Amino acid sequence: MNSYLLIIYGVVIIAALAIIGFIRFIFSQDKGDEKMQQISDSIKEGAMAFLNRQYKTITVLALIVAVIIIIANYYGHQSEGVGSAISYAWHVGLAFISGALCSAISGYIGMYMAVNSNVRAASGARKGLNKALQIALRGGAVTGLAVTALSLFGVATLFFAYGGASGQQELVKNAPSLIVGFGFGASFVALFAQLGGGIYTKAADVGADLVGKVEAGIPEDDPRNPAVIADLVGDNVGDCAGRGADLFESTAAENIGAMILGVGLYPVFGLKGILFPLVARAIGIIASIIGIVFVNTKDESKDPMIALNKGYFVTTIINIIVLFFAVKVMLSGHLSNGDSVNYLLLYGAAVAGILLSYVFVFLTNYYTSMSTRPVQEIAKASTTGAATNIITGISVGMESPALPVLFISAAIIIAYRLGELALPNIATAGFYGTAIATMGMLSTTAYILAMDTFGPITDNAGGITEMSEAPESVRVVTDRLDACGNTTKALTKGYAVGSAALATFLLFSAYLDEVKKILGKPIDSWFAVDIGKPEVFIGAFIGAMIVYLFSSTAIRAVGKAAQYVILEVRRQFKENPGIMEGTSKPDYAKTVDIVTKGALKEMVIPGLIVVVAPILVGILLGKESAAAFLMVGTISGVIMALFLNNGGGAWDNAKKFIELGNYGGKKSDAHKAGVVGDTVGDPFKDTAGPSLHVLIKLISTITLVFASLFR
Amino acid sequence: MNSYLLIIYGVVIIAALAIIGFIRFIFSQDKGDEKMQQISDSIKEGAMAFLNRQYKTITVLALIVAVIIIIANYYGHQSEGVGSAISYAWHVGLAFISGALCSAISGYIGMYMAVNSNVRAASGARKGLNKALQIALRGGAVTGLAVTALSLFGVATLFFAYGGASGQQELVKNAPSLIVGFGFGASFVALFAQLGGGIYTKAADVGADLVGKVEAGIPEDDPRNPAVIADLVGDNVGDCAGRGADLFESTAAENIGAMILGVGLYPVFGLKGILFPLVARAIGIIASIIGIVFVNTKDESKDPMIALNKGYFVTTIINIIVLFFAVKVMLSGHLSNGDSVNYLLLYGAAVAGILLSYVFVFLTNYYTSMSTRPVQEIAKASTTGAATNIITGISVGMESPALPVLFISAAIIIAYRLGELALPNIATAGFYGTAIATMGMLSTTAYILAMDTFGPITDNAGGITEMSEAPESVRVVTDRLDACGNTTKALTKGYAVGSAALATFLLFSAYLDEVKKILGKPIDSWFAVDIGKPEVFIGAFIGAMIVYLFSSTAIRAVGKAAQYVILEVRRQFKENPGIMEGTSKPDYAKTVDIVTKGALKEMVIPGLIVVVAPILVGILLGKESAAAFLMVGTISGVIMALFLNNGGGAWDNAKKFIELGNYGGKKSDAHKAGVVGDTVGDPFKDTAGPSLHVLIKLISTITLVFASLFR
Repeated sequence: MNSYLLIIYGVVIIAALAIIGFIRFIFSQDKGDEKMQQISDSIKEGAMAFLNRQYKTITVLALIVAVIIIIANYYGHQSEGVGSAISYAWHVGLAFISGALCSAISGYIGMYMAVNSNVRAASGARKGLNKALQIALRGGAVTGLAVTALSLFGVATLFFAYGGASGQQELVKNAPSLIVGFGFGASFVALFAQLGGGIYTKAADVGADLVGKVEAGIPEDDPRNPAVIADLVGDNVGDCAGRGADLFESTAAENIGAMILGVGLYPVFGLKGILFPLVARAIGIIASIIGIVFVNTKDESKDPMIALNKGYFVTTIINIIVLFFAVKVMLSGHLSNGDSVNYLLLYGAAVAGILLSYVFVFLTNYYTSMSTRPVQEIAKASTTGAATNIITGISVGMESPALPVLFISAAIIIAYRLGELALPNIATAGFYGTAIATMGMLSTTAYILAMDTFGPITDNAGGITEMSEAPESVRVVTDRLDACGNTTKALTKGYAVGSAALATFLLFSAYLDEVKKILGKPIDSWFAVDIGKPEVFIGAFIGAMIVYLFSSTAIRAVGKAAQYVILEVRRQFKENPGIMEGTSKPDYAKTVDIVTKGALKEMVIPGLIVVVAPILVGILLGKESAAAFLMVGTISGVIMALFLNNGGGAWDNAKKFIELGNYGGKKSDAHKAGVVGDTVGDPFKDTAGPSLHVLIKLISTITLVFASLFR
Repeated sequence: MNSYLLIIYGVVIIAALAIIGFIRFIFSQDKGDEKMQQISDSIKEGAMAFLNRQYKTITVLALIVAVIIIIANYYGHQSEGVGSAISYAWHVGLAFISGALCSAISGYIGMYMAVNSNVRAASGARKGLNKALQIALRGGAVTGLAVTALSLFGVATLFFAYGGASGQQELVKNAPSLIVGFGFGASFVALFAQLGGGIYTKAADVGADLVGKVEAGIPEDDPRNPAVIADLVGDNVGDCAGRGADLFESTAAENIGAMILGVGLYPVFGLKGILFPLVARAIGIIASIIGIVFVNTKDESKDPMIALNKGYFVTTIINIIVLFFAVKVMLSGHLSNGDSVNYLLLYGAAVAGILLSYVFVFLTNYYTSMSTRPVQEIAKASTTGAATNIITGISVGMESPALPVLFISAAIIIAYRLGELALPNIATAGFYGTAIATMGMLSTTAYILAMDTFGPITDNAGGITEMSEAPESVRVVTDRLDACGNTTKALTKGYAVGSAALATFLLFSAYLDEVKKILGKPIDSWFAVDIGKPEVFIGAFIGAMIVYLFSSTAIRAVGKAAQYVILEVRRQFKENPGIMEGTSKPDYAKTVDIVTKGALKEMVIPGLIVVVAPILVGILLGKESAAAFLMVGTISGVIMALFLNNGGGAWDNAKKFIELGNYGGKKSDAHKAGVVGDTVGDPFKDTAGPSLHVLIKLISTITLVFASLFR
């Protein structure tokens, strides 16, 4: 055991050192001229003000939930004796608070790095593409590494603290169940972070566009627009803080789920089967660091995307190689009949997961890239007006889940069968196969997250360059990086949904294992979720419905919050005519303040729906219904997220395709139609879609934590 | 038995007499002036031409499927001996052809009556509201009665022909399974009728609007628009022929499903339990005839909706009363322990079904009526442009499934529990409870269908009045009826989804009964569909995905077919400038021809997806996966249909609300945004949404027919 402990904590320390190195690299860069710094400071101020206020709201909500968890778990485990119930309740409650705290810290780091890297990337753009690229990617890398290392550290430490290192079989096998609270705490904070941030960013964006571009006729990022700073702040709070918390909870929830399944294989693998997910994560972190360092573009004329893809490729190859040895060493053992486990089959499952992530990135690219059929179809439909643009965009979005679903299905069944073949006659062997595939897919998380956070940093760098009236040549550099950032953002969304979908089966089976434990059934027995029973069918029905209701409220929240922005901007234009003439500065802070309040107010209802619904279903309809809610809610959520993300991405790029001069170019009727589509797609792809990723995992962790209360 | 035979065929004869009476009433009415007749003849010609050509395409497809069914069922039942397999295959094949034929006849009747009633309603409007109302409703009533009576006649006759009257228990119990082909034949034709009709009507509508209203700036229904006749034809082929076939298959599929469940209760109720669904349908037909005769509005100033609602109320009350006696007489019997069945509990299930239909009509009204929050919210959002109109509309649409799903869930669980309580210790008792609830809900089908077909008749009457340049006073009458028709169309869509949703559980359990029979398990055993198995989970995943893919292709088909219309109209305007000057007539027939070809071409792909997917899932993944595909596909389909129907209806009425003078009225910017929303909603609510109703039932009947082939 000691050697794995060493590996895990060793990697955490290496990651910490890499983070310090990247931070020192970034802070040693030039901060740009005074104008750039002024703008950057405004963004920083607004972003931090939002985060502080958001965390206050989340803290209150989290404390209420923590109390409920402790009480619920006390009652749910009362039958095991008062002492045991108290101990259980406190362990889960403490794990929840730790998870929530770590998730919040992840969001904070993402934001802090983004607001400090943006101005340096803008300044670096004056020295050339490579400089700016490296600053932006390493800024993102800090977030990626911090989030994954923190998740690894948190889960590992809780596991050992809760008895994982005790050497007593019963304590060790019980530990993963006690840390599910960590996953739930992480998802809980991530949901509100992603929702609040997503509402903020799109409310500011839509509001700024509708009054600025449409009503006042001024260009994007024009300093005369009172909402322009709010818009730039939005990129950080939505894409950085939100996504940071989102992927933190992904890695945490899926690690914990895989560890619970590892308990079922204790007779074969012992502690190694439980620790494998953590070691796989550790390998992924090292591979990502190497991948990130690899990225540079010596030839300034090349598409920076090529450099980023090279880094991704390096990370993947290292993972594929090192995971082989990890599987060989950790997942070998003897079956009850004395045969050795065929570890090659389990390695196959890991490779299937890695391949699936590539397929997802490829398919997302097909549906959202400018050069492919779907986007071009939307651009063409724009020539007959906004209505046909919208109809085509929705049609493209609704088509887009088809292939991803077929590939996920194939990956699940392959991984499941490989698990069954490797570990015959063990009921949960197939599920463990899918867990290994998920670990394979998630092994590149740190790199993906770095690419993802790269997006808003370059977006902000572009904004700062524009607002500080830097020379055209600098803007060309930031524009190229920004285009590249848009692509990486779309691709990482595809990756996030794909991993959520693959993890479904893993989290679902972890829930079933919990249920079996509560019912006192042996862990290697089978627990059927029979959708032919009316209450189970209804659980499934409600699960699918909640996804629509949640999306509806999330999308509506953007509309409402944007309304606040529009009214404020109109008021400023009216009361201070000097703004439009350029003689007086608009009150940016006031707009920032208004979006902040609006977004925080509007995030509460959709958030509560997701938290309350699964608990109610479980309490009223029972454990089996909750399982059906979980599965069909996930199915429905994955498909809806693909529809919203890909539809939104396709609309965005259809508009950009027209702006390149096609179908009449900018200011043509086709362009106007394209703008309508892009605006409709904004809350799809940046608010509801990403929040659904969190929803999918939240309903898993919440049912895990409250399972003991269900009928 | 003889007495029930008498009741069923007696009601069929009464319905036939009522139909003859209504037809004589309509054909005795004045056909209007020459101009009206000319327009009406053009519509008639176009509609009949479309139907004839559509039926040719469907015949080819149906014959191919018939051959496949016969071969598949021969192979599937080979293990029972060659003689038995041949007999089985031919019975199912013949039933399929009969079902397809009856469904086609239903569509034909609906269309024939609509194109003959519209001009008479227009002419009647010159004599006042009451006259026009009665003509339009009785025209619709012919369709409603013909469809329901034909379904009753077809199912009953096949049942008796296939051994239901033989008195031999084995033959009687086997008969319902042999007639599932009838349901599949009906759904198969209905799918293509609804798809083809739905694509036609919206392609013509969108095409006519985009070139006529937007490009050429001429009003709706202007005779100078070459697509205007195609648009009026579309109302008939989509709303009449399509909906007629749709509701024919609803009643057929759900009757057959309920009869299969009745077989499981043979020891308690004997033949009566199998015949109850048919008798309930017969009662509903009589109640509907009385309700229809009741409708008249002596006070011409009153909203005609009040008169229609009164008729609906009368129909419902008669059903509630008479069903009580039917349940009392037919569903009493003795349990194996000698206790009598508590028939009051079963009656309770029927009442729950009837109440659910009221709730659905009420909720649909809430989401689509002009005076309520959702529509007003969309209208208000139109003031900030098309993008906010669309965002709000989608948000409203996505919210709208929430309450209906909760009410369906409640109805299912209540009916199920009542069934279990009334028939303790019988495995399928609960399912039979939901079957009774479905029969209760469907008892008003004939009346609902009359109201539904009333819509396109008044719509056409309005168009004829407009085009024949009738005096303003006549147009006021047809406008009032048209507004009323829009409401009834929305409400009946709500009813159709509601009944489809309630029937899910019934059809699903009928499928499980079939599977048990094929596996040689006793019919009162339990067959679990365990969604925790990977192949079952994947079946569910694909089921949910197919709904999106189908909706995508259906929506896209409208866009493509509309493109053909746009090009043709532009061509005519360009080549013949006399059209716009009013000096020469446009070539209406050419446009009709082009939409016909376009719609028929575009209906094939979405249709094939639905037919092929469940068979493939069953063959590749097995019977349990097909069951999960069925259930989750249905769940997903119901929710998507509610989203599309209600979203589309709300956009439509938001535009109308603005047109009444709100937010600047016609030609304001808000109105332009409202038109975009309405156009987007058109393929939602008139193509994809209604086709999804058929899809839901088709995947049930198709899995029933092919069950023996599945792994």
